[in-house]
Amino acid sequence: MTITEAGADLRAGRTTCQELTAAALRTVEELNPKLNAFITITADAAIERAGQLDAELAAGHDRGPLHGIPIAHKDLIFTKGVRTTCGSKLFENFVPDYDAPAVARLAAAGAVSLGKLGLHELAYGVTSTNPHFGPVRNPCNPECIPGGSSGGSGAAVAAGLVFMATGTDTGGSIRIPASYCGTVGFKPTYGLVDRSGVQPLAFSLDHVGPLTRTVRDAELVLDVLAGPQALPADRPIRIGLPANYFFDVIDPEVKAAVEAAARLCESLGFPVISVQVPDIDALNAAAFAIIMSEASAVYESHLPRRDQFGADVLALLDMGTLVPATAYVNAQRLRTRMGAEFRRLFETIDVLLTPTIPIVAPRIGQLTVELGGQTLQTRMGTTMFVRGFNVLGLPALSLPVGRSRSGMPIGAQLVGRAFEDSLVLKLGKALEGAIHSERGKAA
Amino acid sequence: MTITEAGADLRAGRTTCQELTAAALRTVEELNPKLNAFITITADAAIERAGQLDAELAAGHDRGPLHGIPIAHKDLIFTKGVRTTCGSKLFENFVPDYDAPAVARLAAAGAVSLGKLGLHELAYGVTSTNPHFGPVRNPCNPECIPGGSSGGSGAAVAAGLVFMATGTDTGGSIRIPASYCGTVGFKPTYGLVDRSGVQPLAFSLDHVGPLTRTVRDAELVLDVLAGPQALPADRPIRIGLPANYFFDVIDPEVKAAVEAAARLCESLGFPVISVQVPDIDALNAAAFAIIMSEASAVYESHLPRRDQFGADVLALLDMGTLVPATAYVNAQRLRTRMGAEFRRLFETIDVLLTPTIPIVAPRIGQLTVELGGQTLQTRMGTTMFVRGFNVLGLPALSLPVGRSRSGMPIGAQLVGRAFEDSLVLKLGKALEGAIHSERGKAA
Repeated sequence: MTITEAGADLRAGRTTCQELTAAALRTVEELNPKLNAFITITADAAIERAGQLDAELAAGHDRGPLHGIPIAHKDLIFTKGVRTTCGSKLFENFVPDYDAPAVARLAAAGAVSLGKLGLHELAYGVTSTNPHFGPVRNPCNPECIPGGSSGGSGAAVAAGLVFMATGTDTGGSIRIPASYCGTVGFKPTYGLVDRSGVQPLAFSLDHVGPLTRTVRDAELVLDVLAGPQALPADRPIRIGLPANYFFDVIDPEVKAAVEAAARLCESLGFPVISVQVPDIDALNAAAFAIIMSEASAVYESHLPRRDQFGADVLALLDMGTLVPATAYVNAQRLRTRMGAEFRRLFETIDVLLTPTIPIVAPRIGQLTVELGGQTLQTRMGTTMFVRGFNVLGLPALSLPVGRSRSGMPIGAQLVGRAFEDSLVLKLGKALEGAIHSERGKAA
Repeated sequence: MTITEAGADLRAGRTTCQELTAAALRTVEELNPKLNAFITITADAAIERAGQLDAELAAGHDRGPLHGIPIAHKDLIFTKGVRTTCGSKLFENFVPDYDAPAVARLAAAGAVSLGKLGLHELAYGVTSTNPHFGPVRNPCNPECIPGGSSGGSGAAVAAGLVFMATGTDTGGSIRIPASYCGTVGFKPTYGLVDRSGVQPLAFSLDHVGPLTRTVRDAELVLDVLAGPQALPADRPIRIGLPANYFFDVIDPEVKAAVEAAARLCESLGFPVISVQVPDIDALNAAAFAIIMSEASAVYESHLPRRDQFGADVLALLDMGTLVPATAYVNAQRLRTRMGAEFRRLFETIDVLLTPTIPIVAPRIGQLTVELGGQTLQTRMGTTMFVRGFNVLGLPALSLPVGRSRSGMPIGAQLVGRAFEDSLVLKLGKALEGAIHSERGKAA
């Protein structure tokens, strides 16, 4: 069920805020022991809040589309009075004394938070098996990772524990769990959603955004997180399909699903143009230099407390302290140059369509994947198509476009110009609608 | 003579563009052998250009206030077909194939360039004795430095070789020579004047701006370099006079001259408010980490050619390669925090008034200065009041407010809010006018 559908039921008197919340909490109780999506569940507060929201509705005070909708927050977004661990031992007893603006805005819009969701340690980490809170599991196959770092968010939305979860995305951390779990995930334009009150990982790459079941729902949430977004003037949306890089090293099933999505866009009347994309490997290299430097700047003072860190995060943080400033500065200069190259690409297209990830969700603990005769590190393979758009700060949406024969979700990524978030979402809604119609026909 | 006065003579038929240029070139011929202000003199091209501009005026085509005005450019600003050494052996034979936008704008406004002006090696360097092109000398005392890095610009304007010179300012490099030579120097808000076609030193701190004889002339030049600036709504300009830091370690003659300037402002009706300024030492530390990192990122690939560098620049560049990225990132984070602190300060004042430098120009080769019982490195003493405003990106003007008993100029610095350049210049003009009136009365 989507936010829109739940809202319709609520306003038609077919359900109440408390019933929605109680039903969600029952699902959490049933599935969370298996999925480990939640770190902290705030059931009593949620029920109480839902009761207040029912009273408001009864009194004619409707806060809008999120009124009474059960949601949850990634556990590095500050929640007043509710423990915020950041998936880390450092913060296992940290209780913020204020809500992050993103949390406050969703609460003011009537959303009911059920608690805090699991994530990679400090939203960093190579493996998805959080050493302090255990691995989150993929609802489509509990032996597989949900992707990260917002793994709890992806699992909770995909398994129906909540209608929406907040996530953060520094190198793909919203889009990856969305793709692996079969949800929608949206990284808005850099800076569009307030990041204050969110534990930083790499301040020049960090984004806050939603994971939802539909693109329409993501749009509703963005309206709350960032304020209503103006739609760019009506125009035919030109879609760029990369002729290089994005389909070179890829699971054939993922390739086929994304190419089918491109054909579906064409059948909807959107021109699909074959384009050469600038050097994504260079962008990825810049992303690594920047994230390692900025993350180590955040945590350098904590590094002497070595038992507080998992081994892989500790190794990344140690390595980050050895990056020379010149490398960081040159990565930022490269960022400027690549931004100009992408602006030129976006003179001929409006949205770029790519696979989100070249593979489907690997097994928990699987450190490498075989692809086209190559052995890739899982982390590298997982982030290679998404990380560059953090460096560029462009709005990027992942939406489900199919399943592998093994039943695992496949995501496609739509990337737009800076601050044309609403255009990306508009195309996403059209594609999503077409996919649902196709499925309807097939069924 | 000022740009305004020369323009009046020109339009009254009392002189011609060619006469102005020829007179300036005669002064260059007479004084440059002593001052070493110019690295390259383009006499023939200047005379020819002045002739064209006379023909234009005769035909009724007046390009505005800079029409026919002799100027010169700091020798790291690209000039098409004219050698641009950057004061460095690396670039001693470099001839750009285009004009920097700043150069092109001044040329289009009718200014006549006489050539290229000396500077610290690569606009960096601890000492002002350029190892490749020799020291520029202070027109007020040839045994003293003109200040840098735009030393040729300060000397050329002060000695009457040109009416205006371009400069660049990464850690005070416009305001310092202005203060030491007794000219006006203006560092506009970061980003207001296009820095493309200007050899970078530290891209997040570099500014382009003018050195002139009067504030009014600086305003005319800014109108050309950045386009006409709107004046903020008429209001009483509140002046902040620091109660801490800026008058703690300072030559008593400099202190007295700047305090007299503050009293003059008060007599003009501007409220002068005693204020506590945020931690300038922290800003200066951030400036050092940033400039060292960014400069070494620019020149790292050249470092193996060690004979191309003077010893002090080589040492700075070598040190810069050892700065960890975490230090650079933390310096940038501190920059953000200090920006917020200064925005709060500027809620209570409109312009901050400080000394430009705590001392008057020291002797060439003098590496330390004695001040209030302390021994300061000359470079540190020279930059401590100016460097922080590069980190903040705020508009900062230096104008002459007096002389020491030894006859050396003393400058005061006016700092405004970002993009309130015209307000700073407005106050500067008022103060300048009052100083001239006082001198008239005294004489």
